[in-house]
Amino acid sequence: MNMTKILLLGCGLVGRTIAKNLARNYKVTVVDINHKNLEAVGNSPNIDTIVLDVSNGNNLLSIIEHYDFVVSAVPGFLGYKVLKSVIEAKKNVVDISFFAEDALALDALAKSNNVAAVVDCGVAPGLSNIIVGYNSKKMDITNCKIYVGGLPFERRLPFEYKAPFSPTDVLEEYTRPARYKREGKIIESEPLTEVEHVDFKGIGTLEAFLTDGLRTLLHTINIPNIEEKTLRYPGYAEKIRFLKNCGFLDNSYVQIPSGRCRPLELTASLLLPKWELSPEEPEFTAMRIILECKSDNKTIRKQYDLFDVYDKDNKDTSMGRTTGFTACAVANLLAENKIKEKGILPPECLGFSQNNFEFILNYLKERNVQINIIEN
Amino acid sequence: MNMTKILLLGCGLVGRTIAKNLARNYKVTVVDINHKNLEAVGNSPNIDTIVLDVSNGNNLLSIIEHYDFVVSAVPGFLGYKVLKSVIEAKKNVVDISFFAEDALALDALAKSNNVAAVVDCGVAPGLSNIIVGYNSKKMDITNCKIYVGGLPFERRLPFEYKAPFSPTDVLEEYTRPARYKREGKIIESEPLTEVEHVDFKGIGTLEAFLTDGLRTLLHTINIPNIEEKTLRYPGYAEKIRFLKNCGFLDNSYVQIPSGRCRPLELTASLLLPKWELSPEEPEFTAMRIILECKSDNKTIRKQYDLFDVYDKDNKDTSMGRTTGFTACAVANLLAENKIKEKGILPPECLGFSQNNFEFILNYLKERNVQINIIEN
Repeated sequence: MNMTKILLLGCGLVGRTIAKNLARNYKVTVVDINHKNLEAVGNSPNIDTIVLDVSNGNNLLSIIEHYDFVVSAVPGFLGYKVLKSVIEAKKNVVDISFFAEDALALDALAKSNNVAAVVDCGVAPGLSNIIVGYNSKKMDITNCKIYVGGLPFERRLPFEYKAPFSPTDVLEEYTRPARYKREGKIIESEPLTEVEHVDFKGIGTLEAFLTDGLRTLLHTINIPNIEEKTLRYPGYAEKIRFLKNCGFLDNSYVQIPSGRCRPLELTASLLLPKWELSPEEPEFTAMRIILECKSDNKTIRKQYDLFDVYDKDNKDTSMGRTTGFTACAVANLLAENKIKEKGILPPECLGFSQNNFEFILNYLKERNVQINIIEN
Repeated sequence: MNMTKILLLGCGLVGRTIAKNLARNYKVTVVDINHKNLEAVGNSPNIDTIVLDVSNGNNLLSIIEHYDFVVSAVPGFLGYKVLKSVIEAKKNVVDISFFAEDALALDALAKSNNVAAVVDCGVAPGLSNIIVGYNSKKMDITNCKIYVGGLPFERRLPFEYKAPFSPTDVLEEYTRPARYKREGKIIESEPLTEVEHVDFKGIGTLEAFLTDGLRTLLHTINIPNIEEKTLRYPGYAEKIRFLKNCGFLDNSYVQIPSGRCRPLELTASLLLPKWELSPEEPEFTAMRIILECKSDNKTIRKQYDLFDVYDKDNKDTSMGRTTGFTACAVANLLAENKIKEKGILPPECLGFSQNNFEFILNYLKERNVQINIIEN
């Protein structure tokens, strides 16, 4: 029997961790526009690399037919276009590009092409959706809070932050209205607001604020109160709000004496070097999901805590591990034909199946991504 | 006898207050590149206005011969060039343009042209120098602290600040190293540092931080410990330091996707509308000078407090009043031939003369600029 052949698009911090893990069981071909990114993946008999610009749809079409399915780990701004090309080529796909567009617009195309496209398949969105999906089949969730963030251990002012993925994508998240649900209604709010403090063992107090991270969870599962908040070291939200209030996150041109300039572009350029993780810099990913359901006038509360750190031995970032291993677990399900649905599949759909849910959590556990569950 | 004829260059917020006050005793011709600025000065039989671009030296030369002396209230970036033209035209001059260049470089030219050029002749630098100069003739000053700031009464976040003069000049002040003296040595330091709190009656607590405001006082009078700090509402320095640490006050080009941009230019453009005083917006000027001298093992301490507010009746800003009236008082001394020295004259030199000192303080007092003196 021939080994399953997977085409992995993008070899950034997350892509390279995905490549190494899929290569344990499958043939993997990684493509990236930058050969340096491809070198970072190291040598493995099961990994091939190709320097290729997949923003050009013809480039992608010229190779895609040789593969069984696709994992897309391209930057957000490319994500939707690439996903559409993959679906048009009738290949199943796991997508962690977290693009801004609405994936469900491709649902009809995916169904008519008999394609399963699992989108938003990282840690949050991703693993968080899978956990919420699983629990929604066990109980009527009335309240759901999701806290998530990736942070460096070294806390260097002014931001005490490094971006484990593109700083432009990070800043863009602070410009979109944050959507959440209260008593069944979707509410739009300024991002970076409703700041609260959350404690994590070994780290201490983190700050949590609203961002627009719920995506499909706003629509797919009937939870009357649900919100997602981003975790940072305390003081961060106020600094970003300050930049925003000054106009530094605006994306329209501003006239300046020497010409004109988009403030958001300048801000991303100035922050890029400050937010770049140093090579082998230790960082962690923290996620907390708090679920509440009413049963016989009693409130049942279930808390999932994930705390994961940089893997020094394998040089895998924690963001790469938590995002990438979730995508790898789902890629395994695809390879083993365990996903029967077709169309655009938000990850919560995977949680609806007890077997798939247990497979994913075991896959993470085997790779030492620990999730503690507190129930009371 | 013909009335003295004064040429006033610049009709900004300060210039228009100067025009109206000089016109009580003299013929004043105000020039400005912007006719709207000239309209703001109102109608007065002793005031003429001319729309003229004085950054072109020939324009200035074409009219200057008709006047007895000059008051220069042009923006800082034009100041040095205009001052040089005035001195070359052999006219005495009072200058409040607060340019960045070293005025003393024009001293030889001024002396050989028999010109008295009083520079930095506002509130601080200006009145502060005059007060320090006066006291340096009465006692050996060992310690001198000067606090000064102009602020709006309405405290609107994020800056709680309006610029009573050009925002570009304000930002530029935060990029120059702050110079002060400790035990006789000139020290250069990051501006916006050594933050302390200072209380003013009726206002409450203000924040004070180092800026480069001492200028000639670093050299002209032997005071072993002297510093100047800028006053703002608390929290301001940290916000500006944050912008500075991010690179938003850098003046070199940064590459951005759509071209290139000087961050300082963008920052000035974004803050300009936020820092603009609204028409008739109440603001105040606060200044505190603390002088110490040792005498017979006793420390004598003398404190000058100035607190001045917007003049609603005359629509004179407080910054216009305190800066402009000081310049007007000195213009009066020039008109009445009370300044005998030639060359570049820092305002502390005027304080060396008891008569001139008393004249200036009386001039301010008559216009209700109150200075309280506490001695202990």
